[in-house]
Parts: sequence; structure tokens; C-alpha cells
Amino acid sequence: MRTSFYISDGTAITAEVFGHALLSLFTVEFDHITLPFVETEEQAHEVNRKIYESFQETGERPLVFYTIVNSDVRKIIAQSVGINYNFLDQFVAPLEKVLGVPSKPEKHRTHSIHETTYDIRIEAVNFALANDDGSNLKNYHEADIILVGVSRSGKTPTSLYLALQYGIKAANYPFTEEDMGDVLKLPPMLRRFKDKLFGLTINAERLHQIRSERRANSRYASMQQCRMELREVENLYRKEKIPFLNSTKFSIEEMSAKILSQTGLQRRKY
Amino acid sequence: MRTSFYISDGTAITAEVFGHALLSLFTVEFDHITLPFVETEEQAHEVNRKIYESFQETGERPLVFYTIVNSDVRKIIAQSVGINYNFLDQFVAPLEKVLGVPSKPEKHRTHSIHETTYDIRIEAVNFALANDDGSNLKNYHEADIILVGVSRSGKTPTSLYLALQYGIKAANYPFTEEDMGDVLKLPPMLRRFKDKLFGLTINAERLHQIRSERRANSRYASMQQCRMELREVENLYRKEKIPFLNSTKFSIEEMSAKILSQTGLQRRKY
Repeated sequence: MRTSFYISDGTAITAEVFGHALLSLFTVEFDHITLPFVETEEQAHEVNRKIYESFQETGERPLVFYTIVNSDVRKIIAQSVGINYNFLDQFVAPLEKVLGVPSKPEKHRTHSIHETTYDIRIEAVNFALANDDGSNLKNYHEADIILVGVSRSGKTPTSLYLALQYGIKAANYPFTEEDMGDVLKLPPMLRRFKDKLFGLTINAERLHQIRSERRANSRYASMQQCRMELREVENLYRKEKIPFLNSTKFSIEEMSAKILSQTGLQRRKY
Repeated sequence: MRTSFYISDGTAITAEVFGHALLSLFTVEFDHITLPFVETEEQAHEVNRKIYESFQETGERPLVFYTIVNSDVRKIIAQSVGINYNFLDQFVAPLEKVLGVPSKPEKHRTHSIHETTYDIRIEAVNFALANDDGSNLKNYHEADIILVGVSRSGKTPTSLYLALQYGIKAANYPFTEEDMGDVLKLPPMLRRFKDKLFGLTINAERLHQIRSERRANSRYASMQQCRMELREVENLYRKEKIPFLNSTKFSIEEMSAKILSQTGLQRRKY
């Protein structure tokens, strides 16, 4: 199997995202090796040895995706035996022309603590954790958005992703048996924040499956219970005109991007 | 201010990561606009109108970073008035040659629920949440890694990032006043999992600042207490030969990448 290397003097996240996106266009399988924080010439030579070894073992030149700020290190990796993609580089000169200014690659400014909005993201993660599963209703005035839905419909991972990726403060509130009664009504304390509510729903089969992994053969996980709860929340969303999404076929990345574009919510991190 | 658009018929995360990395090489400021899920020709024309409006308003052609699987939609965006970067595209033909197979762009396979390891990542997130702050010691045998450290040294956000990004099951355990006693000793139940332990530390000034935001003027936040706790944990790490990192100057992305490369931990998602 051919190897694909992702190399950087930073986290190598950019190299991974680019390389994965490109390789996902092919049905070929790869061995993936990420080598972050290659910061010295010695480390760079060591990386080139690894690339060479992979070539020897597989008989195929590895693909090498890299972004390296340190020019001495970069020059060494550029000489590896792999097929080298310094994929940002070829865009730099044309962009300098467009912008009319030279580039100034000094340090990694993405995925590092030098991001101007780094503290905002961490604060948002802490907010999501402190306001998970209706645990801290008194902070809802601080929330940018409040995700609502039945237990295990995807609220918590989505709120964490909104925080990590976009710096958005997302609380979440699970509708419980107590809220259900005969007909699910909007709890009065949520009504105060109605403009911030965003509903999640999910197909009953999928919910049954997820809940069964948690508590097999429980009433909580039964198809009947799942169907009933989902019918109630969806009726509530429609009646109260709460925007909502079905999470069954979407990743948390997709859910988060859809929530942003549907609500027009202002993200704090670009 | 010039505008930079990030456009996709998926989440647009790849377009954002690429565009942000490229623009971070310049000291120019941009307005950023992300338009995900542009899935129809009608939506594409609407996008082109927005790009045109931005050009009219700013007098400068916007930058347009896009990855679009649907070829009808892609062709329309390619005609926008912006400076269009279909940044994956120019790598496809050369890579087809290298691999000897044609590309098959059918749907977005990154950042979507079609990722083969998607469920593993979500399971890891749920594991991190269920095993946060020493809340569930009985699951430690399932953990890939157990982050240890004093309160507010970065364990929780790092364990969440390890889960989300890499599908790694990270538990975390906070050393508390009770563990400290006269000298901090490794709690017996942690000793059983010693090979999984990874220590975090942080500079006392930074810890004092973070804790003060939480509980101003408390003993918990005092410089004296912060210094004492950090001295104890660092002594313990050295004595017990627990690998550790200082989180003061690193983002959670950097911490996670460093932990992976330092421990050789096998990630579940590439």
C-alpha cells in the first residue's frame, strides 16, 4: 500500500485536511503517517529517511503533503524521495500579486495559540460543558444558541463542535419524561429564550439503536418510546416554529455548518 | 476590506482550512464569508450574486476558495467575478497520473457521516465526557490515554479534541487537595493504568489567571496554591517517569498533536 505523509513544523492539521480531501477523490487506499513539529534540520533529515524507507518497503514513492514555515527545514523536505506537495506554495506568488503585498510567513497562525480567537473558543468549550444537558439553566442568557431535543439526538457533540470550531456558546436542554406529560409543552424557562432555541430530531430506528447501545432492552430504548418522544418534539417544533434539523444522516461537522447557515448565527472564529 | 468567500456543496471546512492557512501568510485583513451546502444551480447563481455585490461594495475582487463535487454547480461558481481558487482541482490530474487511476468525486467523504470512522469519533467524544474529571474511574481500562494534572491545566478540552479529531478515547483525572496530602502520591487506582498516564502542567501565573476568572480571590486561585500544586505534580511526573507537557504556550490542537507524536498512540481516524 502506498504511504501518504503529512508533515509540518506546526500541528500538520492543514496538511492533513488538504491531503485527505484530495485523496478522498480517489478510491485508492493509503497508509497515513503524520509527522508534526518537524522544527530542526536534523528532524527534517530523519523525516526524509522515513520517507525513503517507506519507498524501499512499498516500491512506490510516497505522497508528501507539507506546510513548513522554517525555510531551512522546508528545503530539506523538498528534496525527499517522495512526491512532494508543498500545496500552499504555488498559491503564494499569484496571491502576492493580487494583494500587492509580500507574504510574511513567520509562524503558524492557524491551529495555534497565536490565533486571535483562541481564548474565545476555549471559553465556549467550557460553556458547552457547564451547560450540557440542562444542567445550568441560569446561564442561558449568555448562550448564543440553545440546542433542544430528546436524549441522544446529538445535542452534546454538536454543541461541543460549535464551540471548538466556531467559538459559539451553545447550551443544550434535553426534553425529558417530565416535560412530556400528556403533550410536550415548551418549559416556561425555555420560552424566555425562544429566539435562541434550535431543535434536533433523529429517525426513530437510529435513536432506538443508539439508546440500545446504552441501555439494552430498557423502556428508554424501546422503539415505542423513541417514536413517542420524537413525535412529541417534532410537533412542538412545528407548533412553536422552532427551527430544527434531523441529525440521522449528518455528521456533527455537517450539523454545525447547517445550523450556522440556517440561523445566520455570528461565529466568533473564522 | 477585501472579502474572502469559502464555498462548498459540503461543509466548506476544507475550503476554510486551506484558505485560512494561505491568508495567514499575509498581514492583510479580510472579511470572511462561508457558504456551505451550495447544492443547486439556483443556489450557485445566488452565491455569484453575493460575490458580485461584495465586489461592487468594496471595489476589490473577492477571493473565492471552493471545493464542489457537483459539476454543474462547480461550473457556475467558476464563472464568478471573484478570484476563484478551485484549489484541489489542479492537483487532481497530476495525482491521477501518479496513481494510474481516475478520480471518482462522488460525494464529500471528509467531514461527513460517510467517513468510515465517524461512529468511532462520536463514541470517543461520549467516552471523554463520561470520563471527565475523574468521574468514572471504572472505565479506565477502556481508555487509550488518561490525562492527569491539576484543576484547569487543560485536561478536558484536550481530551475532547483528541476524541473529535483523532477518535482517541481519553479519560482525565484531576489531582485534588485530597490526593496532595503532605506529598502528592500516585493514587493506587491510577497506578494500575500507569502506562496510559500522560501529565499536563502549566505555568503558575497562567493557572492563577485562569482560576481567578472562575473563583476570584479564592485560596483555590491564589498564586501560593497554584505554585504548590504545580510543584507537587511536576515532582510526581518526574519521580514516576510519567511523560508530561506544559500547556501554557500551546493550543489544544498543538497539545493533541504533541501528545500523539510523543506517545506514539495509535489514532483511529486519519
